[in-house]
Amino acid sequence: MKNSLNKKLKVGIVGGTGYTGVELLRILLNHPMVEICAITSRKESGLDVEELYPNLRNRISLKFSSPDEVDLTICDVVFFATPHGVAMSQAKNLVDSGTKVIDLAADFRLKNKSVFEKWYKIPHECPDILENSEYGLVEINRHRISSANVIGNPGCYPTTVILGLTPLLENNNIFIDLNRIIADCKSGISGAGRKLETSSLFAESSDNFKAYGVLGHRHHPEIVSQLERISGNKVNLIFVPHLVPMIRGMFSTIYTKILPEYSNLDFQKVFEERYKDEFFIDVMPSGSFPETRSVRSSNNIRIAVHRPNNGDDLIILVIQDNLVKGAAGQAVQNMNILFDFPEATGLEQIAVLP
Amino acid sequence: MKNSLNKKLKVGIVGGTGYTGVELLRILLNHPMVEICAITSRKESGLDVEELYPNLRNRISLKFSSPDEVDLTICDVVFFATPHGVAMSQAKNLVDSGTKVIDLAADFRLKNKSVFEKWYKIPHECPDILENSEYGLVEINRHRISSANVIGNPGCYPTTVILGLTPLLENNNIFIDLNRIIADCKSGISGAGRKLETSSLFAESSDNFKAYGVLGHRHHPEIVSQLERISGNKVNLIFVPHLVPMIRGMFSTIYTKILPEYSNLDFQKVFEERYKDEFFIDVMPSGSFPETRSVRSSNNIRIAVHRPNNGDDLIILVIQDNLVKGAAGQAVQNMNILFDFPEATGLEQIAVLP
Amino acid sequence: MKNSLNKKLKVGIVGGTGYTGVELLRILLNHPMVEICAITSRKESGLDVEELYPNLRNRISLKFSSPDEVDLTICDVVFFATPHGVAMSQAKNLVDSGTKVIDLAADFRLKNKSVFEKWYKIPHECPDILENSEYGLVEINRHRISSANVIGNPGCYPTTVILGLTPLLENNNIFIDLNRIIADCKSGISGAGRKLETSSLFAESSDNFKAYGVLGHRHHPEIVSQLERISGNKVNLIFVPHLVPMIRGMFSTIYTKILPEYSNLDFQKVFEERYKDEFFIDVMPSGSFPETRSVRSSNNIRIAVHRPNNGDDLIILVIQDNLVKGAAGQAVQNMNILFDFPEATGLEQIAVLP
Amino acid sequence: MKNSLNKKLKVGIVGGTGYTGVELLRILLNHPMVEICAITSRKESGLDVEELYPNLRNRISLKFSSPDEVDLTICDVVFFATPHGVAMSQAKNLVDSGTKVIDLAADFRLKNKSVFEKWYKIPHECPDILENSEYGLVEINRHRISSANVIGNPGCYPTTVILGLTPLLENNNIFIDLNRIIADCKSGISGAGRKLETSSLFAESSDNFKAYGVLGHRHHPEIVSQLERISGNKVNLIFVPHLVPMIRGMFSTIYTKILPEYSNLDFQKVFEERYKDEFFIDVMPSGSFPETRSVRSSNNIRIAVHRPNNGDDLIILVIQDNLVKGAAGQAVQNMNILFDFPEATGLEQIAVLP
Repeated sequence: MKNSLNKKLKVGIVGGTGYTGVELLRILLNHPMVEICAITSRKESGLDVEELYPNLRNRISLKFSSPDEVDLTICDVVFFATPHGVAMSQAKNLVDSGTKVIDLAADFRLKNKSVFEKWYKIPHECPDILENSEYGLVEINRHRISSANVIGNPGCYPTTVILGLTPLLENNNIFIDLNRIIADCKSGISGAGRKLETSSLFAESSDNFKAYGVLGHRHHPEIVSQLERISGNKVNLIFVPHLVPMIRGMFSTIYTKILPEYSNLDFQKVFEERYKDEFFIDVMPSGSFPETRSVRSSNNIRIAVHRPNNGDDLIILVIQDNLVKGAAGQAVQNMNILFDFPEATGLEQIAVLP
Repeated sequence: MKNSLNKKLKVGIVGGTGYTGVELLRILLNHPMVEICAITSRKESGLDVEELYPNLRNRISLKFSSPDEVDLTICDVVFFATPHGVAMSQAKNLVDSGTKVIDLAADFRLKNKSVFEKWYKIPHECPDILENSEYGLVEINRHRISSANVIGNPGCYPTTVILGLTPLLENNNIFIDLNRIIADCKSGISGAGRKLETSSLFAESSDNFKAYGVLGHRHHPEIVSQLERISGNKVNLIFVPHLVPMIRGMFSTIYTKILPEYSNLDFQKVFEERYKDEFFIDVMPSGSFPETRSVRSSNNIRIAVHRPNNGDDLIILVIQDNLVKGAAGQAVQNMNILFDFPEATGLEQIAVLP
Repeated sequence: MKNSLNKKLKVGIVGGTGYTGVELLRILLNHPMVEICAITSRKESGLDVEELYPNLRNRISLKFSSPDEVDLTICDVVFFATPHGVAMSQAKNLVDSGTKVIDLAADFRLKNKSVFEKWYKIPHECPDILENSEYGLVEINRHRISSANVIGNPGCYPTTVILGLTPLLENNNIFIDLNRIIADCKSGISGAGRKLETSSLFAESSDNFKAYGVLGHRHHPEIVSQLERISGNKVNLIFVPHLVPMIRGMFSTIYTKILPEYSNLDFQKVFEERYKDEFFIDVMPSGSFPETRSVRSSNNIRIAVHRPNNGDDLIILVIQDNLVKGAAGQAVQNMNILFDFPEATGLEQIAVLP
Repeated sequence: MKNSLNKKLKVGIVGGTGYTGVELLRILLNHPMVEICAITSRKESGLDVEELYPNLRNRISLKFSSPDEVDLTICDVVFFATPHGVAMSQAKNLVDSGTKVIDLAADFRLKNKSVFEKWYKIPHECPDILENSEYGLVEINRHRISSANVIGNPGCYPTTVILGLTPLLENNNIFIDLNRIIADCKSGISGAGRKLETSSLFAESSDNFKAYGVLGHRHHPEIVSQLERISGNKVNLIFVPHLVPMIRGMFSTIYTKILPEYSNLDFQKVFEERYKDEFFIDVMPSGSFPETRSVRSSNNIRIAVHRPNNGDDLIILVIQDNLVKGAAGQAVQNMNILFDFPEATGLEQIAVLP
């Protein structure tokens, strides 16, 4: 590893102009152990970073570099905050140079190459690296992450749904009917990114609510593949994403059916036990109603477990900030694991409320 | 009936200070066949109505009257836009005088007196009138409404969920598993009314999303009792309401399981057939995504039917404006039926978009 | 005039895909005297209008036509809801055919051709028509409008600022210092239109407030030229527009200095007198605070006059819905004048609140 | 001073249940040199602080104490996040015990006792302490603050207006006409606090814009008294506050007239010079448009100087987060000065965007 005890970690960011890019910068600039060496953007090359993101004025003196003129192999780690397909084209070169790769897009989220190609409509360029990459959901894969070279940072919806279901189906302890899982998910508008789309305009999306992607969303195979890996079983999932007129925040309402043989289990306790050592996961008291604002701008997940009338329905409510635990914060958490920093370094910020 | 061909209908409103009150006024002031005779409010008695609601300035010259000083029996119809419990205390007197009653609160929504008393924690004062009242969901009960004296105007959530499920379970044609219905519902903040509650403050509810009432919401028994009446069967429903940071609008995502024997049915057609003559119900083309803004300030319902991968899951998306079709608009629709006006009179306003 | 007593007015709309276009449709579809014959859009040609604007589903059966295939001279009146420069290219042909033209863009707002060309960076193609056109601010120019063939529909900011100042400077009664007028104006985001601009994205403009155009906004010369025409004097105006995170609504705070010789004047009365016969203008009681929501979706203007400590500062607060009185509503009001319909026809809709 | 090099500062908070209270907690919990000893609330006494503010769950283990049962004199410093009138009743006792007082309410903002009593309608209980207190606007009064025992933390509007004008009128260098200053100010809804008021409800204040307090706002005498102190001259100010439908953020548009003798001055440079050593004040490049989101949740102020057409109008745009630099952040900045910590300690958080 290039990083030694006395030096700060050298960090590169590819494609730092979107919302995950600026969020990475906000977090990394507060991280005591890193130094940002380069941010690339083909389009904004030459522009002061602080020009694009006014919250960073006087806090960063870097310019966007053209991807062609920067040698990222001098970095200890490179984050890809790019569209799908970019990280896979550069990963081999970086890995060969001993540089770790954390991809915030989808290139390394789906282990199955053909599933990837079906959903993302591009061939996978480095299947061998894909095979050796790890899915960066720390609370599930912490140990495997620590020894990986390439991390596929989870999608925002998958982070909430997988963490909300894991205690119910891992280690061959399957407490719920794997054929009857429904995830009704709601995301803030920033989840659509900074792309110019009519539906993302304020005058179109404010004071409005809608569903989308009922017949197929790329996060569906990602969630299912992870749940199947964790449970060792086939999983059937109905997943409907919706858009909420708020900037940040994600809320997943997950409906499950308790298997008859586990009807006496204390599910509140199951969740509390599973996550008792997790700094970022808050299993709220029984009967709680988490609100997305309670994690705004923080890396926290909050989970509440509801069992109406003590019947066989178990409803799990999960919240996060889609840009932090659902993207940039989780990426930094992965970096902390990769470089053996205390896991919460740079991520202890308390949520902004109101 | 007091109303004759040559005179306008005399309308009274009890408790016109909340959001359903002002919405009733907005609609009724555009209704060509009515004259508003009295609006009562104990608290605002003596105040010009236009003082309380600045959108009505120069459009209405009435003052709020004290409930004690007005004889509402001169009215042809009285709307109650009051808290639960008020309409039941005055209904008998009005009905005896030949005045029709439309209650926008819950006093006449639940036919079963003991279910009412369990959920609303007050004794029902006029069980005989309750028995002869009708549930005012026009598209389901049109003919029974026309001959009723007292109408229980449906709750906002029930309107969407019942209309979203009716084509799947009425007339002994039960196409779905009645034990596996989930309604994940989302409402704009105006649904909480104009009451002073910390959670309804802008700084608390804006840029936020949350669930509430998972373990029991008063609309749950209302929905179930109607579905059971329509289907003639026992219905099991999971119902989770959520709050969306928008003023108006309601979105219900309803998850059902198609019974195996109906797997070849064209459900899009089932819905289109059922509602083809309904002016206010728009069954959107297959694969559509309704948005709440498309019905903002109008009495429309839009429904989209989704069947992922042509499997046995049928997902129904239903939207409305919670203050119009979910409250005041539906009340006026009931009035139109009661007095044999064309059903859409005063309700043809096109939704305001953007 | 093509229109006769027994027939509906034939209306055409050029460029009906933006927010003023859909708002025109919403208003005209409720107008009892008109029939929409054609809506053109080069880009959306062939598309059902209701596909683009879901609030219009089942309310209009027209398709967008290509501008090349429609003969608009069969219309009695054509609205241009287009970018600047389009109306001027078609006005001559239409006028020659006896078709009235109402341009919602800027082609006929500035009488001075060179001022127009300086601010809009395009040559004016029909200066002779410009000369004979009229500025469509009905409350100021009602009589001149009635006999014009081409109407330049006012900009949104100018509508509020001109109406807020007119009583103080018209007919050679100049009550205020014309060198010390400041208009601090605030607009909802829909004012920026439906164009794809990063700054109009929800995630950029929600929960945010900013100024723009301090050093030059195209509405500045429009306001000044009208105030100079009304006052017969040179006017010096500071005008700063701002963006408010709301869809609709415009608020102008206008700061003026009372001339010493008029310090005893009752300015509340001056405004009340001036606008006492105007259906759409509400001079609120002294000390009032108008709110934009009180005119949402309506054609009303509300004005409040404040004179702190009875000193020489006079502050005028003016509100409107920027898409109605600030655009489409005012255009229809102009049409009503042109065709001698009662002025409020189709425009009596009460504001939607909450 | 009780604080020694090796120990953390003991901090008390009186009245920690409002928005400035929770914001103080968010900032202080990230401050490396302080320990929160007590938070009082008569109403919430006994409640876990994290119960009231869900963003603080697992981050603080304190309960609200009753004001009667806590001895705050053990603290090094006590913040009052209370209504007006509370700090003055406890200040003497605390000061006598060597405890510093920072009042976030108005008790120590107005040096002139009779002006205070006129605007706040309560007698001032400790005029002698008032006389020795200091107005806590660090960038203006840094040295006087460092030796004070009681700090009157500035109001939110005054912070922006005073900082936006100071470079133009201090040290007997009066560059502008002190009789022609207009501050048109806009605040997010959180500025109204967490009090239950109908006008602060989401359904009332969202998608709305309005002015208030034109005829008299308590921040008016506060601004004027400070400007007069700084300039040594009488100042005439028109101040109109408005409410913006956003949670946090404040924007002040300040209109001034340049005195003829200074028409050649480079005002951009005047501002840059004045604030070049201020960590929290960002004088943006000429022609910039600051946006409130660029300081959301941070202690920054951004200022832009505009001079239209190089004339005699000078327009100053100033932004801040009303809860941070306009309240809790500024209070902590004052604490840092009082205890000789580096001024930005605990306040370096980068603004959250988007």
